[in-house]
Amino acid sequence: MKDIIIIGIGPAGISAAIYLKRAGLNPVVIGQDFGALSDYPEKVENYYGFGNPILGEDLIKEGINQAKRLDIEIIQDSVIALDQIDDHFKVKTTKHKFQTKTVILATGKKRMTMSIPGFNKFKGKGISLCAACDGYFFRRKKVALIGCGPYMAHELDVLKEINQDITVFTHGSPLLESVSFPVVNSKITRFLGTDKLEGIETEDGNIYQVQGIFVAIGAPSSIDFATKLGVVVERNSLVVNHTYQTNIPGLFAIGDVIGGKLQIAKAVYDGMMVSDHIKTYLKSK
Amino acid sequence: MKDIIIIGIGPAGISAAIYLKRAGLNPVVIGQDFGALSDYPEKVENYYGFGNPILGEDLIKEGINQAKRLDIEIIQDSVIALDQIDDHFKVKTTKHKFQTKTVILATGKKRMTMSIPGFNKFKGKGISLCAACDGYFFRRKKVALIGCGPYMAHELDVLKEINQDITVFTHGSPLLESVSFPVVNSKITRFLGTDKLEGIETEDGNIYQVQGIFVAIGAPSSIDFATKLGVVVERNSLVVNHTYQTNIPGLFAIGDVIGGKLQIAKAVYDGMMVSDHIKTYLKSK
Repeated sequence: MKDIIIIGIGPAGISAAIYLKRAGLNPVVIGQDFGALSDYPEKVENYYGFGNPILGEDLIKEGINQAKRLDIEIIQDSVIALDQIDDHFKVKTTKHKFQTKTVILATGKKRMTMSIPGFNKFKGKGISLCAACDGYFFRRKKVALIGCGPYMAHELDVLKEINQDITVFTHGSPLLESVSFPVVNSKITRFLGTDKLEGIETEDGNIYQVQGIFVAIGAPSSIDFATKLGVVVERNSLVVNHTYQTNIPGLFAIGDVIGGKLQIAKAVYDGMMVSDHIKTYLKSK
Repeated sequence: MKDIIIIGIGPAGISAAIYLKRAGLNPVVIGQDFGALSDYPEKVENYYGFGNPILGEDLIKEGINQAKRLDIEIIQDSVIALDQIDDHFKVKTTKHKFQTKTVILATGKKRMTMSIPGFNKFKGKGISLCAACDGYFFRRKKVALIGCGPYMAHELDVLKEINQDITVFTHGSPLLESVSFPVVNSKITRFLGTDKLEGIETEDGNIYQVQGIFVAIGAPSSIDFATKLGVVVERNSLVVNHTYQTNIPGLFAIGDVIGGKLQIAKAVYDGMMVSDHIKTYLKSK
């Protein structure tokens, strides 16, 4: 059983890890995606301490190296599931499973999106980002699951308990997991329907009639995890109290995902501040 | 008339300047002393973003270069006086005078101290760090003024309006300003007295009877400025509201000087956060 698992290897997560480690604790940091900073086209000019501007991606790498120098355990892997059991958590990555007393969500605000006509129109109206949250509503419907890797496989495990009429769409990517359901490899070109989702059109000209679509590309975001656990979300941000704790005891969140200024300085500050509260929480257990 | 003068060239002051500049404002940053970080013997390991630990002094230099790259005006000079006139401020450095609508105090918590027997015992009981605050209490007493440069000269200007029995002690340093009062160059070895301050003993064996001593070595700290202006100070920290404003309208304070965590991450965060409040304040004028 770990004491602390931090999900996210950006400024918030690494800053929290540094402060926790220096306080004598042993946080484990898990992350794969470099987050919003890695997509930022311009160099970072407004985070204090760099005479020459630094690329977001390079800053993330510096942070990871900084943590490694302090012997912080960093696992570069995607978290595909986060579940609560009694008073602790199970964290599943593509390669490992952990149990932990506390979790800090620090993955940033980047969420899966698809630039495919109809995606935004039908999101929430047939297109879901969480099998555990919405699978039941589609239990007697034809559904599609979009994805190709461990996250897709995890969502498929959830879905197949409630539905057997599932088709997996890899959207042009090679299938990384073996599945016992029909698989479509062609790229998706359009989501069809009028008021409600009715089907999927693929590059090869086929049309597949479905009433529900579950998207499991890449890895779930903190908001996906949190929604599934029943964390209060307001305006696309996780709600935390003054100790950075969500309404789930032991589940903390910092950085962009809790809203406020979407700035490195704020994420780093959050990471520093949450460390005291984690210490207090662990001591109280 | 400037819009914003930031006093302090450390993480808090420079971070504020960067955010203000990028918001289209023209802050002027004034500072000489590198503050607490420059004395820090170990390299900085807990401020996010540095794969290799960095010396505090080097971090300060990086920050100054970062600001200069953004065309922020930085004046490397000591502020020796800060006064309020109507709804604005006068800032006096050793070489310049400015008027400004707002001031951000960001000099850190380092205060002048003297490792001389009797200093701590008589501080507040005859030894004062502010001529304007305490000069009147000693108006019919023999007083000493310790210092050798522009700050001493400024304090002397204040003192001589209320007292003519002043001796200047340079404490072994060369006198940088011409003064029309007796000057003692020998180093101070002890402050004498039983309950109250009674005199100064110097290295050459002389004893000078004085009832009051004003210390003006180096440059005044933010707390010295603030005390003189009537800012509420609690437990050696300036009290600010949620907008980082002190009880003096237009006078803001950030970083170590307002207490809380004495950490770079917190100073940088304060700098980012105060910028919005300064914008709001200036707009309301």
